[in-house]
Amino acid sequence: MATKDTAAAENIRIWARRHEAVDALNQKDWCNQASIDLKTVCEGADLVIICAPVNRIIELTSTISPFLSTETIVTDVGSAKTNIVKECTAILSDQACFIGSHPMAGSEKTGMENAQSTLFNGKVCFVTPSEKSSVENVQKVSKFWEDLGSKVIVETPEKHDELTAKGSHSPHIISAALASYLDESCPNAVDFCGNGLRDTTRIAAGDPGLWTEIIFQNREEILKSLSDFQIEIEKYREAIAKNDPEMTKSLLAKGKKFRDSL
Amino acid sequence: MATKDTAAAENIRIWARRHEAVDALNQKDWCNQASIDLKTVCEGADLVIICAPVNRIIELTSTISPFLSTETIVTDVGSAKTNIVKECTAILSDQACFIGSHPMAGSEKTGMENAQSTLFNGKVCFVTPSEKSSVENVQKVSKFWEDLGSKVIVETPEKHDELTAKGSHSPHIISAALASYLDESCPNAVDFCGNGLRDTTRIAAGDPGLWTEIIFQNREEILKSLSDFQIEIEKYREAIAKNDPEMTKSLLAKGKKFRDSL
Repeated sequence: MATKDTAAAENIRIWARRHEAVDALNQKDWCNQASIDLKTVCEGADLVIICAPVNRIIELTSTISPFLSTETIVTDVGSAKTNIVKECTAILSDQACFIGSHPMAGSEKTGMENAQSTLFNGKVCFVTPSEKSSVENVQKVSKFWEDLGSKVIVETPEKHDELTAKGSHSPHIISAALASYLDESCPNAVDFCGNGLRDTTRIAAGDPGLWTEIIFQNREEILKSLSDFQIEIEKYREAIAKNDPEMTKSLLAKGKKFRDSL
Repeated sequence: MATKDTAAAENIRIWARRHEAVDALNQKDWCNQASIDLKTVCEGADLVIICAPVNRIIELTSTISPFLSTETIVTDVGSAKTNIVKECTAILSDQACFIGSHPMAGSEKTGMENAQSTLFNGKVCFVTPSEKSSVENVQKVSKFWEDLGSKVIVETPEKHDELTAKGSHSPHIISAALASYLDESCPNAVDFCGNGLRDTTRIAAGDPGLWTEIIFQNREEILKSLSDFQIEIEKYREAIAKNDPEMTKSLLAKGKKFRDSL
């Protein structure tokens, strides 16, 4: 929908697994052709975007590889990149070029009925080339996301995974851990809690299955980041236990400084 | 302002420390009389509400005690209650009745220019009597907050402090610890972070001085609660470290269940 509205591509073909979805897609003016057949939608494409759960992306890349030309660029929308870029680059070899993408856009709502063509507008999209990617192809993928309104950041897959472990995956786990702790310890919080607790735990409402997949795709970086967070929260506990208001205040002030920067 | 708008009291007298504030208050149609003199505003009052930082409430109670009658009820708006109710009840002895209050309403904006008469509307207010408080006086304090639109929960000071440590103070510290960890580890998060991180760290923007006072008023319960949270986050880290997606998913599902209940 966004691709059509922004004229980012001339001919938009969409693969879906179910006939009902294909029929519905063929009714939409933003889809030139929908099919359950991967060959039909991939053959002759300049750019293939694999929009699938992170644990299916590598398998789908393998399945479509016979239908691609050396001119084709393949990208994805997975939220962890090191493993995907490594595996998919190896699978495609010289047959096509794989460059990872991670558009940081979305909502808790799923399904075609919740589609919004403005979803990517003003949102960050990471583009993560491999060492083999040409500058020209990186620019092509970047331009596609920019056409959709995204702000593109080009990073190595490894740096991307470190940054998202810190800024997205660990915060999700911390929010979830607060929520699951309270589920046992304070189940009646709903009777008195304010917007503070609602905000702090909002992302814990995310789909557990989807988030488990995301976490295990970026396991190493998340483990490092969680350990560092555990050290930080222990500093607060110690400052309070040792009756040290000055240290407590200076920790809180550092947190405020960071939050104000957002 | 809320007291006037809801006609919760007939005669509203306000104490302020600065002459400029007193002059400004005397211009307002919701203030019958403002003064820098505590005796002037407290004498003859049915209900005195001490609106001051938590570390000043006990001292102010002591200062005003000579101006009160045995009919006077004194309450406060501090966010921790065990210590305040114990100390203030002892100070007032049989001179007046102290009953704690904790209206869970407010915003990050301060000052008279940000006053809103609807601030308490639909918000929870804890009322925390001592063992000496009469049922009649508890009802009077409860009715005052209900007149302002609050939903009153009557609890012992100890239970209040346990609940708020779990549902408010610890979440604040956890949010701040995430933010101060990232301040060091990922200072450029602003370039790519999404609404998830913004939500999770929103309350970390609170005033560090004010929150240090709140924390040290409820120190014991916060330490217990933080330790329990540390055990919970270690469960997540272990499940991920041990390559256990089933356990990870079931922890996330427990967090989602709690969040959905809010």
